[in-house]
Amino acid sequence: MTDRVYKKIEITGTSATSVEDAVKNAVAHAAKTVRMMRWFEVVETRGRLENDKVAEWQVTVKIGFAVD
Amino acid sequence: MTDRVYKKIEITGTSATSVEDAVKNAVAHAAKTVRMMRWFEVVETRGRLENDKVAEWQVTVKIGFAVD
Amino acid sequence: MTDRVYKKIEITGTSATSVEDAVKNAVAHAAKTVRMMRWFEVVETRGRLENDKVAEWQVTVKIGFAVD
Amino acid sequence: MTDRVYKKIEITGTSATSVEDAVKNAVAHAAKTVRMMRWFEVVETRGRLENDKVAEWQVTVKIGFAVD
Amino acid sequence: MTDRVYKKIEITGTSATSVEDAVKNAVAHAAKTVRMMRWFEVVETRGRLENDKVAEWQVTVKIGFAVD
Amino acid sequence: MTDRVYKKIEITGTSATSVEDAVKNAVAHAAKTVRMMRWFEVVETRGRLENDKVAEWQVTVKIGFAVD
Amino acid sequence: MTDRVYKKIEITGTSATSVEDAVKNAVAHAAKTVRMMRWFEVVETRGRLENDKVAEWQVTVKIGFAVD
Amino acid sequence: MTDRVYKKIEITGTSATSVEDAVKNAVAHAAKTVRMMRWFEVVETRGRLENDKVAEWQVTVKIGFAVD
Amino acid sequence: MTDRVYKKIEITGTSATSVEDAVKNAVAHAAKTVRMMRWFEVVETRGRLENDKVAEWQVTVKIGFAVD
Amino acid sequence: MTDRVYKKIEITGTSATSVEDAVKNAVAHAAKTVRMMRWFEVVETRGRLENDKVAEWQVTVKIGFAVD
Amino acid sequence: MTDRVYKKIEITGTSATSVEDAVKNAVAHAAKTVRMMRWFEVVETRGRLENDKVAEWQVTVKIGFAVD
Amino acid sequence: MTDRVYKKIEITGTSATSVEDAVKNAVAHAAKTVRMMRWFEVVETRGRLENDKVAEWQVTVKIGFAVD
Repeated sequence: MTDRVYKKIEITGTSATSVEDAVKNAVAHAAKTVRMMRWFEVVETRGRLENDKVAEWQVTVKIGFAVD
Repeated sequence: MTDRVYKKIEITGTSATSVEDAVKNAVAHAAKTVRMMRWFEVVETRGRLENDKVAEWQVTVKIGFAVD
Repeated sequence: MTDRVYKKIEITGTSATSVEDAVKNAVAHAAKTVRMMRWFEVVETRGRLENDKVAEWQVTVKIGFAVD
Repeated sequence: MTDRVYKKIEITGTSATSVEDAVKNAVAHAAKTVRMMRWFEVVETRGRLENDKVAEWQVTVKIGFAVD
Repeated sequence: MTDRVYKKIEITGTSATSVEDAVKNAVAHAAKTVRMMRWFEVVETRGRLENDKVAEWQVTVKIGFAVD
Repeated sequence: MTDRVYKKIEITGTSATSVEDAVKNAVAHAAKTVRMMRWFEVVETRGRLENDKVAEWQVTVKIGFAVD
Repeated sequence: MTDRVYKKIEITGTSATSVEDAVKNAVAHAAKTVRMMRWFEVVETRGRLENDKVAEWQVTVKIGFAVD
Repeated sequence: MTDRVYKKIEITGTSATSVEDAVKNAVAHAAKTVRMMRWFEVVETRGRLENDKVAEWQVTVKIGFAVD
Repeated sequence: MTDRVYKKIEITGTSATSVEDAVKNAVAHAAKTVRMMRWFEVVETRGRLENDKVAEWQVTVKIGFAVD
Repeated sequence: MTDRVYKKIEITGTSATSVEDAVKNAVAHAAKTVRMMRWFEVVETRGRLENDKVAEWQVTVKIGFAVD
Repeated sequence: MTDRVYKKIEITGTSATSVEDAVKNAVAHAAKTVRMMRWFEVVETRGRLENDKVAEWQVTVKIGFAVD
Repeated sequence: MTDRVYKKIEITGTSATSVEDAVKNAVAHAAKTVRMMRWFEVVETRGRLENDKVAEWQVTVKIGFAVD
């Protein structure tokens, strides 16, 4: 068995509604360019405020994916 | 163009239901005393447990707002 | 009045749907073996990815409980 | 029941004698301007040295207080 | 000579009077259930405020103890 | 001699030209509302990018000032 | 499918020869009391020095194991 | 409105003269391969010493850029 | 002399035998796609446990490489 | 006016009785070899346990002193 | 080829004008007592405020130098 | 019994072969100038890459030694 290797990319997803959706958007976008994604790690949660309300959740994740 | 300056305050919002609502409560309260809020950063997520259940989500955020 | 003492355990709850449910699952399981749980602190949020989607939220919390 | 909100302020108390007194001084001073203080967190312990001796303990705490 | 192994537990001691007493209370309680305690590491110092005074010091330590 | 107490505020200064000017702007603004400022600590350095260039340096500092 | 839950314990393994052996000793000992161990995370690497030589590697790991 | 997604890359710029120039060099180089850069975060400042002088400033930044 | 610029990638190498081999596997794989690699920094050491034994060392490194 | 320069040394003081005494012991010892000590920063608080009691407080400080 | 060894010292340089000059002052002073300095790492940036202005930049660096 | 005091120095050992050898080289070199070394703490693991291979392991340790 060969030893597997994984790369990690850092990506910030946003959503008007929730932390979970911001992560899902980050993953969905990453899926356009990388294959074999295996896990993510949340590294930062921030957001934009507009008119005294949360206008956007911004969640930065590191995504690990296997490389051949 | 003048260089802008922002202040940050640290505030803990609570909610019986979700991380998102705890943040919204923190922002709603901050809106009573500061204007021109621009962003927030989650710095801690904790909670109170009662009768073996999550009774309260406690999310501490730093809120950045512009100053004149 | 006696000075109270608390122990902390570290536990990772998982959920297919949300951060909140992952924490609730961790708390529900901890309730099987410890009593008088008082608070939790989120220490890490990660997840498993499958078929380009979030398959599982994994939230690690420290749970504090009173000891006699 | 309304969801409570807490603000945190950061304050450095000093004392010629002990860590505990430095914290008490910080709290005593904060009491002049904020009400309903609930907890503190020590974030830094430093001190001033003079004539080869500890001349002053400087303890920085965050103080959390409830807001209406 | 066999290689020794140590476990660590995390425990929060409290005291109305000092940081040192809070740690001693944590250690005294731990002594009820673990043997061969060797060292401790302070990981957090917090406290409860009541009527504008420090009502309780809360010091969290990790305690290392040898296992057979 | 009375034990001195210091408060800290967190403030983000910006500048089109340098880290130093961003800090100076933060200090200049703080001077409008607090007196007896004694020291600052840089806690974060970021910036805004526009048209492939650094458009703005954003330096967050904590400013400590004496309170009576 | 039920949502799985994992507990983590913190344990320090030692070895006269290498980092790897210190971890293996920690894992071997943990195996005496917990089942279904899934992963470990190295949190600290230290050692004891004697007669100007490394006498003992001390590696602290967190071990995650599934709970029913 | 679609939720925006940002990627981050980590890049170390160098300069013989200043922190600011090191960052600008990092940004200038990144501009060759990525578009729509929005912000940067300084994560490390180091340097090379030669003949008892600072020969090179090395500033590592994370650069965030929008992806379609 | 032009100011050099370096990029960093984050990559997790694995090995059944040692920390060193896990790093070497990460570097060997990175060599397939990037040139002029100059240094690495270990950012995390974890592993997989199977049948009460270390089945796989997982070492995450950041690799710095020069860019033209 | 010349720009002052300070060196820092790291030193661990111990005491059977308190955190404060451990720091004082560290400072007293440092005074044997360095002059013009100006400040200290507590970086770690640990201790040795013997017979289920705190046998020794071990406080590590960084001491800053002016150099000519 | 022999394996090289480096020592690190921690030193705080000050300057009335800039971060860069504070570092240069630290390096210049270190050059009086150590040889073969190779690199520095900025670990803290602070400053003194006087009359509502930055009176002094204080930059703490670790300096690495080769030892024979 | 007198309260013992320990100093710490920071030193980077290198080795072409392993993490363990890099630490041993650091310790061996420190032994030339300090006596009564008691423990070490690994604070950073890095390395140099040459021709797509690990050319050198660089492990930085803090070494604690007793002082009279």
